Amino acid sequence: MGNDKNFVQEITNRDVDFSQWYTDVVKKAEMVDYSPVRGCMIYRPYGYALWENIQGILDKKFKEVGTENVYMPMFIPESLLQKEKDHIEGFAPEVAWVTHGGSEELQERLCIRPTSETLFCDHYARTVESFRDLPKVYNQWCSVVRWEKTTRPFLRTAEFLWQEGHTIHRDEKDAREKTMQMLEVYIDFVENYLAMPVIKGQKTEKEKFAGAINTYTFECMMHDGKALQSGTSHYLGTGFAEAFGIKFTDSDNKLKTPHQTSWGVSARMIGGIIMVHGDDSGLILPPMIAPVQVNIIPIMQHIDGVLDKAKEIQKEIRDIVRVKLDDSDNKPGWKFSQSEMKGIPLRIEIGPKDIEAGQVVVVRRDTREKIFVPISEIKSELPRIMETMQKDMYNRALKHREENTYSAQTMEELENIMNTSQGFVKAMWCGGIECENKIKENLGVTSRCIPFEQEKVSDKCICCGNTAKEMVYWAKAY
Amino acid sequence: MGNDKNFVQEITNRDVDFSQWYTDVVKKAEMVDYSPVRGCMIYRPYGYALWENIQGILDKKFKEVGTENVYMPMFIPESLLQKEKDHIEGFAPEVAWVTHGGSEELQERLCIRPTSETLFCDHYARTVESFRDLPKVYNQWCSVVRWEKTTRPFLRTAEFLWQEGHTIHRDEKDAREKTMQMLEVYIDFVENYLAMPVIKGQKTEKEKFAGAINTYTFECMMHDGKALQSGTSHYLGTGFAEAFGIKFTDSDNKLKTPHQTSWGVSARMIGGIIMVHGDDSGLILPPMIAPVQVNIIPIMQHIDGVLDKAKEIQKEIRDIVRVKLDDSDNKPGWKFSQSEMKGIPLRIEIGPKDIEAGQVVVVRRDTREKIFVPISEIKSELPRIMETMQKDMYNRALKHREENTYSAQTMEELENIMNTSQGFVKAMWCGGIECENKIKENLGVTSRCIPFEQEKVSDKCICCGNTAKEMVYWAKAY
Repeated sequence: MGNDKNFVQEITNRDVDFSQWYTDVVKKAEMVDYSPVRGCMIYRPYGYALWENIQGILDKKFKEVGTENVYMPMFIPESLLQKEKDHIEGFAPEVAWVTHGGSEELQERLCIRPTSETLFCDHYARTVESFRDLPKVYNQWCSVVRWEKTTRPFLRTAEFLWQEGHTIHRDEKDAREKTMQMLEVYIDFVENYLAMPVIKGQKTEKEKFAGAINTYTFECMMHDGKALQSGTSHYLGTGFAEAFGIKFTDSDNKLKTPHQTSWGVSARMIGGIIMVHGDDSGLILPPMIAPVQVNIIPIMQHIDGVLDKAKEIQKEIRDIVRVKLDDSDNKPGWKFSQSEMKGIPLRIEIGPKDIEAGQVVVVRRDTREKIFVPISEIKSELPRIMETMQKDMYNRALKHREENTYSAQTMEELENIMNTSQGFVKAMWCGGIECENKIKENLGVTSRCIPFEQEKVSDKCICCGNTAKEMVYWAKAY
Repeated sequence: MGNDKNFVQEITNRDVDFSQWYTDVVKKAEMVDYSPVRGCMIYRPYGYALWENIQGILDKKFKEVGTENVYMPMFIPESLLQKEKDHIEGFAPEVAWVTHGGSEELQERLCIRPTSETLFCDHYARTVESFRDLPKVYNQWCSVVRWEKTTRPFLRTAEFLWQEGHTIHRDEKDAREKTMQMLEVYIDFVENYLAMPVIKGQKTEKEKFAGAINTYTFECMMHDGKALQSGTSHYLGTGFAEAFGIKFTDSDNKLKTPHQTSWGVSARMIGGIIMVHGDDSGLILPPMIAPVQVNIIPIMQHIDGVLDKAKEIQKEIRDIVRVKLDDSDNKPGWKFSQSEMKGIPLRIEIGPKDIEAGQVVVVRRDTREKIFVPISEIKSELPRIMETMQKDMYNRALKHREENTYSAQTMEELENIMNTSQGFVKAMWCGGIECENKIKENLGVTSRCIPFEQEKVSDKCICCGNTAKEMVYWAKAY
């Protein structure tokens, strides 16, 4: 483990085989281990630490807007799952079923939650009576199970870690506001912490959540030009409430049906971080989210005073950055490689010459820029360098997306773009599912979203030539 | 919901029917809701907030002693569960089985983890090669499933929230030290945060964990005199490592078998908090762990200036205590009752007269003591009052345990004690499983532990009369 001198050369080149590069990185950076369970992955400490940071920041943001955490059972009785017609149709093909408890066969089989709308609704039906009980803004952190055919660490696994928010409101306005508020909470997080620019918009009828009135999404472009749907927020209307018999007495003493929302993001965001920012040396983690932000690597650590000085610096900065000191007996070159593989934003090199000069060398993971920093200024310089790096990473990703976003007015154009380059294509659409299906079948791209920021690429639907209703982003997607 | 004027009277008297009192409290305090899933419970916001506090504090303590968090799949293939003989024997009768994924029957059925030794071992077998890879000190926060026949919120549910630590070490000494270190981490937490005094010791062979060499435990006495096993730490020896083929090359270049531990506590600790501290008005939460520590209740809040002053105080203290202001339109008396039901450690009453006198009334939940505090001194007084309350709660629980702990030299004595009073009984034991079984069958009490702090109650085993090996605590248990 780990002591291999040829560490770096073991990764596939990113532009040669992106998929293999991804697999290499998640393993070599020790984020995951494959498990003996089909389609399930093991989060190793480094991968899980990233999830813990995501969780910690989002949880705080959720609570700031009045969210309360709860925990629902992992099982859903079959009869409960079936209560909302569209919902069961969407999820039935991909749930795992528990049929036996101990040595006995169950009278009713239980599915392992693929999502928990049904359980929340059942609870709301018992606990919501008056307008005074509304809104309820609940969230849970848990894992869910969807029996996927092909799986890939973080991006698509049979069991995955996520959070699911479920809220219930007095009227449509309140519920719609919550739907958009949570979408913005997500986007703020993804752009400012994960340094991933997003396209935000609405899903088409075909692509929306099973049981929702509207699904809102934000889509990120990966380095290979494919899209990653990174989170969604749904306005559910009153469909679930009606199916579950949830009613409340309003202030006018009338019995009314409440409106609901649900929203979720998952550990697939980690896949996004990897695929947006990584390079041929491994991960590059945005400083705001990195489990270790600064890695101190002593040079010639056997020489008196070097290790002491390194420890002194570690002690001085540990209150302002997440810092690690690598005083293992590996060679500095190996430590550099490992630090790069793990995507640690900054490394600090400190050797006898640096100590003599009263400075350290700070090296940025993304640009490999070397910055000489006087020891007396480390505490003020590190946050500044990290801030710059965070911004640069965002801007680099944005530039990459812009350079790989195209417009198409005809199917031939769309086809040509898809044959010669990967990326997002903006094209007009009539709003018909037939055209959406045809484009998907013929070109292997799906409608990512109807962006909030519309643009008139032409007047006509790219597929049928009828009057266009709106502009849609098309892309291949994870 | 909530607006019932007869709030308090709805709870069963604690000394009349302890079990019904418990059920009433968990529901009326809005900690849990029963779920449509057999044996599973819903953690409502107030119940989950308590779990989040427990998690937050323990997680920090774990990390301080070098623990890293990971996440393993929730499924265990049947063949993997069967690898360690004692382990499968212990758990097979109570696991839930997944047999279908989507519409297809699985080739090998998967159990939902009842505990994850097998998954950690399988991972260690792939990742441990050299002594440099040791120790690994891993933990995960998750839920596990054990198909229990009779269930009760927090105390025994088919699915329950817990943490499970799994560590692997170079030698026995290192592993045994970790076993005891984690036991002490737990006890420090339970005594100092949950205000629950513990009896610590070793489980008998009969009561130890399936697959362990030694199991260490700490037992708390509930208000009704029964014992609650509140957490355990196991030294696993090399049994699992051998079954899973885990080997490492030591510094002497020899291939050796590592030693392992595992340790866990669960949300049943919340049941302990309720049953140790609660009274006829509801919960009493130790200040150190309470989701809300101070509840400000304005008196005559319609009078100008009262609500403003209450808000001002809230703002002033919110950085030092978890504070809530109840400015709902319910009557103060109702607010007092609800605050008591939820066990909020302190309530602050503030009305026009108090404002005139430049003071507030602070009322302790446990003793109902009223303390007049000048507004200028609130910030310094609140932490002091909470500290005293925390200590008093611990001492009260300790006194209760001491008053309900007995010694017995003969079976008749033991039987008499159990017939007339509930509590812990200290008695000598020969170490034979026959005697242990006999006592359990005849009197319905189980061996709680062989305490580290031994006492010589007599020379002979209470059951067979042969020479006694050690003193054991006997009790009825949850």
